[in-house]
Amino acid sequence: MSDRATPAEQVKELSRGTVDFLTPEELEKKIGKGKPLNVKAGFDPTAPDLHLGHTVVLQKMRRFQQFGHHIQFLIGDFTGRIGDPTGKNETRPPLSDEQINANAETYKAQVFKILDPEKTEVMFNAAWFSKMPVADFIKLASKYTVARMLERDDFEKRYKSGTPISIHEFLYPLAQGYDSVAMKADVELGGSDQKFNLLVGRGLQKEYGQESQVVMTMPLLVGLDGQKKMSKSLGNYIGITEPPKEMFGKTLSISDATMWTWYELLSDLSTADLVRKKEEVTAGRLHPKQAKVDLAKEIVARFHGAAAARAAAEEFERVAQGGAPDSMPEFRIAAGTKVLDGLVAAKLVGSKGEARRLIEQGGLSVDDAKVSDIAFVLAPGAHVVRAGKHKFARLVVG
Amino acid sequence: MSDRATPAEQVKELSRGTVDFLTPEELEKKIGKGKPLNVKAGFDPTAPDLHLGHTVVLQKMRRFQQFGHHIQFLIGDFTGRIGDPTGKNETRPPLSDEQINANAETYKAQVFKILDPEKTEVMFNAAWFSKMPVADFIKLASKYTVARMLERDDFEKRYKSGTPISIHEFLYPLAQGYDSVAMKADVELGGSDQKFNLLVGRGLQKEYGQESQVVMTMPLLVGLDGQKKMSKSLGNYIGITEPPKEMFGKTLSISDATMWTWYELLSDLSTADLVRKKEEVTAGRLHPKQAKVDLAKEIVARFHGAAAARAAAEEFERVAQGGAPDSMPEFRIAAGTKVLDGLVAAKLVGSKGEARRLIEQGGLSVDDAKVSDIAFVLAPGAHVVRAGKHKFARLVVG
Repeated sequence: MSDRATPAEQVKELSRGTVDFLTPEELEKKIGKGKPLNVKAGFDPTAPDLHLGHTVVLQKMRRFQQFGHHIQFLIGDFTGRIGDPTGKNETRPPLSDEQINANAETYKAQVFKILDPEKTEVMFNAAWFSKMPVADFIKLASKYTVARMLERDDFEKRYKSGTPISIHEFLYPLAQGYDSVAMKADVELGGSDQKFNLLVGRGLQKEYGQESQVVMTMPLLVGLDGQKKMSKSLGNYIGITEPPKEMFGKTLSISDATMWTWYELLSDLSTADLVRKKEEVTAGRLHPKQAKVDLAKEIVARFHGAAAARAAAEEFERVAQGGAPDSMPEFRIAAGTKVLDGLVAAKLVGSKGEARRLIEQGGLSVDDAKVSDIAFVLAPGAHVVRAGKHKFARLVVG
Repeated sequence: MSDRATPAEQVKELSRGTVDFLTPEELEKKIGKGKPLNVKAGFDPTAPDLHLGHTVVLQKMRRFQQFGHHIQFLIGDFTGRIGDPTGKNETRPPLSDEQINANAETYKAQVFKILDPEKTEVMFNAAWFSKMPVADFIKLASKYTVARMLERDDFEKRYKSGTPISIHEFLYPLAQGYDSVAMKADVELGGSDQKFNLLVGRGLQKEYGQESQVVMTMPLLVGLDGQKKMSKSLGNYIGITEPPKEMFGKTLSISDATMWTWYELLSDLSTADLVRKKEEVTAGRLHPKQAKVDLAKEIVARFHGAAAARAAAEEFERVAQGGAPDSMPEFRIAAGTKVLDGLVAAKLVGSKGEARRLIEQGGLSVDDAKVSDIAFVLAPGAHVVRAGKHKFARLVVG
């Protein structure tokens, strides 16, 4: 996809996967003016440790860059310096300037795996808020009504259920909206949970005499389980700093349905190429497993480079075809220990009973030779022990 | 009343006429510490043109001064400089520094008729708000909840009826409350419509680690009609810059019931003396008219001095006993004009018919001689014409 694409072609491609898009017509008109657009996305200034779920919005930003647009990567350091003023949220103490700068550097190191640094401007909203007189902030607050703020889903629920809402919580969406004014954003991207705040920005720009930004929200990425949103706490995630092998293997583990969602939200493939790929799988010309390998390689290549992606794919293939992986966990066991106990010690099985069943069913091999004797004792030295198809350990005896 | 009064005596005297008083116990404790208290009252920075209704709070401030306390006369110039940011209220454009300073001088000229300048500190809240970082203002906003703000009567009504409330309107009570923090106010006085805002200050001081201010609110003064609150627009007021004669006469026109309310809210008489006065009237030892004269003299003396008050009382008495006033409106009429037409020209009557009835009923006198001929023509020269008991004009013929 080149930046020679017409405004209509760009809009069509950019619309992929969006939840909210207000409005395609406005975006086409803005692109049609022929200047690179300011595409804003805001991020917390807390320590970033991104997983693939966070990269959905980054991928959309990348797509804008591929069309020649200008990314405004906004770090919300102003609110970060305030912390949680109610003091109720102890996990959100105010951040020092040093912490915020360090976090910004970590962000850059991570997001520039996806974004082109040449077309990315990293901005900090303390730049305008730290200099703003309180009087101007009050004027900002006059641009929005209490009733409209209470229409935000979470506020409405809390108000109706009697859960306190501090007044400053009404000010944050306004501050976020004012960022768009200060940045002269043409487009703002965010997660679908950010829709309300993005619309506030759209409204405020109008109040301040600017053309309203286009608002595009992206869905939450479904995790490895194919059911719930990807999150650290659910354990169904792929961290973007995970090693190539892990990234590759985890991606291969997702269902076919999940694969197509990931393709839509994470792949650089153009929509036309993606449609073609789906058709090939449907027609039986492409095995879904191969499509999954292609996706996994693309993801690994993004964070570790093409060579690492190829290596991860080759090793995965070797293991899948019965070969042992390059590296595996290693355990020391005393001379004379039965392999049955060794399997338990290496955590290749959960219990002695499971180890026994594995051996009896022919699932154990030692140094590529099947072992079916449950009393088998390993000779001194190092041995590659394989339990079932995919589990390996190196047992060092003596 | 001297400043030797005990804390309990002060509290009793100061409680006179209050609508809300939170709490007498706290006030007694604060006074008991032996230091002059900071007594805050806030005023709009708009052009002041005070009537007696405004002086109810000023009288309470004066009483505090008489007990040796320190008055903080706060002019809310910060919000005045913002104006009405919604632009909906065209009568409230932002005020310039020059306007605010000029208004402050006018205020001083008026309020120092009541307050002792030596014990009054004139303060401006832009002093703290113009230097406050927005972050601190957001922290301030975190100290109060949306639900509590919506409990304020007018907000509740507007929210329920769907009348828009701009978010900045929630910020003004917080700003007013923060004034008390910045000023370390021990007491805040205001009209009873200010109760909510004064309580916000009470709560905020606690949040900022200060002892909460005592809150005292005063009722609205009933106007000359004895029915509605005194106000410019209803025309039932006495402006504090009105001439002595007007002030005196208008005060004499109020009902006995209204008189006692005015005594309670406007007079310097101690509560003990006031109780005694009421008893004398009840017992028939003092004519209510005399009590009203005493009140009118006190009010005139406050704004124009004791000599002017005596003169106004004497003139009023002379007119009441049939004498002509020192000054009266003067009208020129052509030679040969009937007195009947002269009465209409001088607006002593509303119509020719009324003039005719007046003359027929014996209500007209010219130069102290009764005239009962409706065809009477005034001789050339100046004549004092009296219609009924109290209406006079000077008619100059030819």
